[in-house]
Amino acid sequence: MHSGDVDYAFSRRVGQLRSSAIRELLRVVNRPEVISFAGGLPAPELFPTELLAKLARELLVSSEGRQALQYSETEGLAALRQRILARAPFAPGSFTLDGALITQGSQQGLDLAAKLFLDPGDEILVETPAYLGALQTFRFMEAKVTFLPCDKEGVDPEALRAALARRPKLAYLTPTFQNPSGLCYSARRRLEVAAAFKGSSTVLLEDDAYRELWFDEPPPPPISTGVDPARRVYLGSFSKIAAPGLRVGFLLGHPALVRRFVLAKQAADLQTNTLGQHLLLRLLAESTFEDHVARLREVYRGRRDALDQALTKHLGDRLTWQRPGGGMFLWCRLIDGRDSAQLLERALEQGLAFVPGGEFHTEGEGRDTLRLNFSHAPEPKLEEGVARLARAMGAGEQA
Amino acid sequence: MHSGDVDYAFSRRVGQLRSSAIRELLRVVNRPEVISFAGGLPAPELFPTELLAKLARELLVSSEGRQALQYSETEGLAALRQRILARAPFAPGSFTLDGALITQGSQQGLDLAAKLFLDPGDEILVETPAYLGALQTFRFMEAKVTFLPCDKEGVDPEALRAALARRPKLAYLTPTFQNPSGLCYSARRRLEVAAAFKGSSTVLLEDDAYRELWFDEPPPPPISTGVDPARRVYLGSFSKIAAPGLRVGFLLGHPALVRRFVLAKQAADLQTNTLGQHLLLRLLAESTFEDHVARLREVYRGRRDALDQALTKHLGDRLTWQRPGGGMFLWCRLIDGRDSAQLLERALEQGLAFVPGGEFHTEGEGRDTLRLNFSHAPEPKLEEGVARLARAMGAGEQA
Repeated sequence: MHSGDVDYAFSRRVGQLRSSAIRELLRVVNRPEVISFAGGLPAPELFPTELLAKLARELLVSSEGRQALQYSETEGLAALRQRILARAPFAPGSFTLDGALITQGSQQGLDLAAKLFLDPGDEILVETPAYLGALQTFRFMEAKVTFLPCDKEGVDPEALRAALARRPKLAYLTPTFQNPSGLCYSARRRLEVAAAFKGSSTVLLEDDAYRELWFDEPPPPPISTGVDPARRVYLGSFSKIAAPGLRVGFLLGHPALVRRFVLAKQAADLQTNTLGQHLLLRLLAESTFEDHVARLREVYRGRRDALDQALTKHLGDRLTWQRPGGGMFLWCRLIDGRDSAQLLERALEQGLAFVPGGEFHTEGEGRDTLRLNFSHAPEPKLEEGVARLARAMGAGEQA
Repeated sequence: MHSGDVDYAFSRRVGQLRSSAIRELLRVVNRPEVISFAGGLPAPELFPTELLAKLARELLVSSEGRQALQYSETEGLAALRQRILARAPFAPGSFTLDGALITQGSQQGLDLAAKLFLDPGDEILVETPAYLGALQTFRFMEAKVTFLPCDKEGVDPEALRAALARRPKLAYLTPTFQNPSGLCYSARRRLEVAAAFKGSSTVLLEDDAYRELWFDEPPPPPISTGVDPARRVYLGSFSKIAAPGLRVGFLLGHPALVRRFVLAKQAADLQTNTLGQHLLLRLLAESTFEDHVARLREVYRGRRDALDQALTKHLGDRLTWQRPGGGMFLWCRLIDGRDSAQLLERALEQGLAFVPGGEFHTEGEGRDTLRLNFSHAPEPKLEEGVARLARAMGAGEQA
């Protein structure tokens, strides 16, 4: 009676809605025999599960228990915002309490920014490649997405300057251990980029969700540090260093701008879940939390190294890559220029999942790239996964 | 250096963004001496706090603990959706698992529906008065909001039929103990409304967040029951019967339509918080949960009666109202036609907050109405609040 092709009078923007290949892959990946380099999941065995169990119980039986279950302010808990300001990688006073908003993960910050700035056809600048979740959000709001070229130090400053001259509404940059490329802008390039924004009306949307997951040395300060305080929005997340299931992220910006974000959030979902905010506040207050983050760095560093070494061993003549200095992803290019989406089909036959890189580019570009996640699988699985990838590529057959 | 009037190149829709007077009032209400009939907060002393403390600990130390802290599917936990389908007020099989989506409160369902259907200028039908959070969301998406008249049985069927003939995109109805009016459509009117939708291309968005909070008799079945399965979206919430701080709501609809809601949610926030979903699933599985809901009905019934009786005693000659059969709000009209926004100023001087009714209407209408919440304050405070309202109105002076 009702087939899948019911005729709905959808809005025009629905024409831009496509499912993410990553999300579709997550279904496949549920098969236990598949090793997944797809997805972007943190290692669940490293979650502070026991500690959160203790904190949740203490919270709920305490005098704050009822508050933690009640509606709360759209802005988010003031005590949590205060703590976020204290932890943020900025000089004290760079942002104020009324310039901080708790979001439903940093993804929501993108949705709110898109709503606040983008009319159909408005331009937004992104990097090549770019975070897929951001592309989905900006395209859904019918933005014109312009991909800027990047080199090993970050986005190309000349291309950025030329694009900013067109006065685009927003520039979305992820300068620190980017998803998907793993790229971390050099300190010099960050200053060049900040300089390019000088006098520009474009608002910089800096997504810094991976900052604390550095393996070799701490990353340089955010680009926002050097940008006009009225023209920057800084997005952060606790999904990578605490737990994604709490669904707590944040954004920092000029109070006059954040006030609009608050109103847009009110219309979107009233507020972020109160319980997750209270739990996170208690977790951040634990003296062991910074040790926990240090431990994440150590384990993920080991996994990054294991993946890097296995690739060198099995596929050093087939792939090129930069060893990432942090984050969760290693980005490769197929030397022979083959299509990674076709390779994925063969890899799945071998029991390995990854994300073909075309998704992170403008239509038709980047087909020879792939994104490999190394945060979720333990080291032996990383090695076995690379062996499977090598088999899928026929490596060794001709070697 | 940076005043509040920084000049931003906002999207056109930002012109529609206004702060809710309710949210602004919530700030005032934080003063302990103020009795608040504003807001729409459930009674925190009735939250199942102890039980949730136990369940949270059990969950997090169990084998499911890591899952509860990890990313999860955009659709929401399958087990939770299954349980929601089993609890929903529909015949078994009316909705299927792929026609159920967990949302960030039912408010998010409104945001997603607006994005999926409303281009600027598209028409959406609402009741008079209408839920303020919905109005904010629809207006932000630049919809043309048409208010339909209501009588004591619900929306006027003739006006609805005439409006549907214009083929509006959506009709947003809250037939069961509406916020703000408390109105519950009669069974007869529900059938008439469903009949008006027959053959219409308009999608019914039925918001049923208050259904389980009935005091005198269970409400008639949802209007959705009688509407073409492809033309209905049913919104529900656990904020009123479990805890708003978990931030878990849901929507049910045709699988072909819900698939688009899932994609829109993915772009909005990836998913609803996993921890809240797991906790709610365990709470709903407790044998005592239905007793908990029965207890809410009993306590709120007592508060409704206390408010009703105090109004009769102090203000029976100044106000008219219908005693609501459920929900959280009592809706009054000032007999002398005075402006309730002006009355609010005097009420605040007396230490009482409420929401002036104009907010819930089209510009300039409904100024002689006010919304009184009775779920949050215990009975003595309800009586004292009415006494303060009477003083603010000068009642007794001339009597």
